[in-house]
Amino acid sequence: MAKKPGRSTGKHAGKSAGKAAGKNGGKAAVKNDGKTAVNSARKSAPPPGPADRWETPAADVLRWVRGTDLSALDQAGTPGWAGDRADGEKLMAARGEELADLQERLFAHGRTGGDRSVLLVLQGLDTSGKGGIVRHVVGMVDPQGVMHRGFGVPTPEEQQHDYLWRIRNALPRPGYLGVFDRSHHEQVLVVRVDRLEPVRVWRKHFAELNAFEAEVAASGTVIVKVTLVVSPDEQKKRLAKRLERPDKHWKYNPSDIDVRLKLPEYLAAYQEMLDRTSTKEAPWYVVPADRKWYARLAVTELLTDALRSLDLGWPPADFDVAAEKARLAAT
Amino acid sequence: MAKKPGRSTGKHAGKSAGKAAGKNGGKAAVKNDGKTAVNSARKSAPPPGPADRWETPAADVLRWVRGTDLSALDQAGTPGWAGDRADGEKLMAARGEELADLQERLFAHGRTGGDRSVLLVLQGLDTSGKGGIVRHVVGMVDPQGVMHRGFGVPTPEEQQHDYLWRIRNALPRPGYLGVFDRSHHEQVLVVRVDRLEPVRVWRKHFAELNAFEAEVAASGTVIVKVTLVVSPDEQKKRLAKRLERPDKHWKYNPSDIDVRLKLPEYLAAYQEMLDRTSTKEAPWYVVPADRKWYARLAVTELLTDALRSLDLGWPPADFDVAAEKARLAAT
Repeated sequence: MAKKPGRSTGKHAGKSAGKAAGKNGGKAAVKNDGKTAVNSARKSAPPPGPADRWETPAADVLRWVRGTDLSALDQAGTPGWAGDRADGEKLMAARGEELADLQERLFAHGRTGGDRSVLLVLQGLDTSGKGGIVRHVVGMVDPQGVMHRGFGVPTPEEQQHDYLWRIRNALPRPGYLGVFDRSHHEQVLVVRVDRLEPVRVWRKHFAELNAFEAEVAASGTVIVKVTLVVSPDEQKKRLAKRLERPDKHWKYNPSDIDVRLKLPEYLAAYQEMLDRTSTKEAPWYVVPADRKWYARLAVTELLTDALRSLDLGWPPADFDVAAEKARLAAT
Repeated sequence: MAKKPGRSTGKHAGKSAGKAAGKNGGKAAVKNDGKTAVNSARKSAPPPGPADRWETPAADVLRWVRGTDLSALDQAGTPGWAGDRADGEKLMAARGEELADLQERLFAHGRTGGDRSVLLVLQGLDTSGKGGIVRHVVGMVDPQGVMHRGFGVPTPEEQQHDYLWRIRNALPRPGYLGVFDRSHHEQVLVVRVDRLEPVRVWRKHFAELNAFEAEVAASGTVIVKVTLVVSPDEQKKRLAKRLERPDKHWKYNPSDIDVRLKLPEYLAAYQEMLDRTSTKEAPWYVVPADRKWYARLAVTELLTDALRSLDLGWPPADFDVAAEKARLAAT
């Protein structure tokens, strides 16, 4: 699939590494190492590719700092990124190669008894671009290794359980990249704003969410939580588009306007959620989302970082390679 | 994402249709229609694109005909396709656009109360390329709308249930594209070959499988079953590669050789499975898989056909569009 640089993976890594070298310099060396020696691939740091224009690493510039004023965020900003959109799209394609390679290592790890996984949690108001992140960022890796789950209004069955029940059921198995489109955090967002529970009940959830995520992290899951923040003006444009175009009507719900009328309440709820549930085990990253290309680039970067942090080589053979070669030759 | 033609979707269909027109003629008109009028998009048949080199439609040439001799299949063949590999890859990229568009319609349909879904069942021996189909074909659509499930040796929990229990649990919800990597058909394949059940027990499964699939189809699911067939020589090469390359060791299992030593038994089992479980509701398509590009092109075509057969337009608005525009404007 020569047309899809972002989708090439370890399966054809010899080939794609060669291609990448042509357009992307440094990356190629890393991927070739992976083919010749187990666990050696990530030892030598790649020289920075020419297309990498992160002045400050995305993780550093976007990680939530308690007490920051969310209302002061420039939703059209591109924090940390010194390049333009074209630079960003180039880097994203290159990162897509690396992301797919890292995800395949994670999957291999899971298939050979490993216990690590990655969970990407996406939060954000309507039109903030959560779906676009799934399509364009998560879409760069093998769907075989992705467990995606969207959380809407709880079903009757879900309502009969604790609110974490459906969340636990959707956690990524070892080796998988889990993706939550909305999440357990709605328990301190819509539940709070729409007064679905008394204050004394939902206020307890902050501590519960943190305890839950600490437990998930301890079980081997790297948690990356992203809040996408769109400006009221940009949201208006995006909602208008959904009303304008018949192919987007299905994405529109009259309740979107109700939510829009409660933006100040949501702002307060998000502010407190960020302040109280951004932890060492499950940090929040707050991503300005008026520029879709930036939001997608940033999440690609965060996800790549998370997978790199696992430092996974290819699993060593748990069989006698020479003996198996002989067995195969004899068939 | 200009670099990834196969991943553009309705979301940017205006743009990608324009691009497609440059390289692919006919497709563009169809997609633009979809943007301007609900349900009109699929009414006018697109003029065949210049890259379409199917002499006989894939579905017609690959659909299993009871009694065909499976052992006579040319696994390196490219039945129905009059072009070469480059032609095939071009058409696959164009079909990827259409597939992503159709899948988004299906997803929209599911989100607005529709009950249709599609289930792709992949069977085939080790190295036949099931994983590559998931990565390269299913990978062309939005991961948000995909429910993928691989079926290996049943877990202890699964073993406590009827063999269809885990299958039912993994069926696609309305609006989803379900993908099974191996399936309920293993009950007449590995179970038969490895004598995990007495003959009188597994022979009953043919009728059970057909009854089950008829029920699934009646509930609104279009079932597309694909058996990928690789030649013994090609399988040997692919297994050798897995043994040669440390990044592929995790895909290798010494039992792969055991299976290879039972190829005649598997051939007989596949022959009978095809003859007895290819039904109107759930036909089998047998795809020669020595040439990966052909197998991927063929499955892309089969899947596109299945989605086209649903004839889904964009769901009409279930709200008053003008009133909502006024409400939005007032915010």
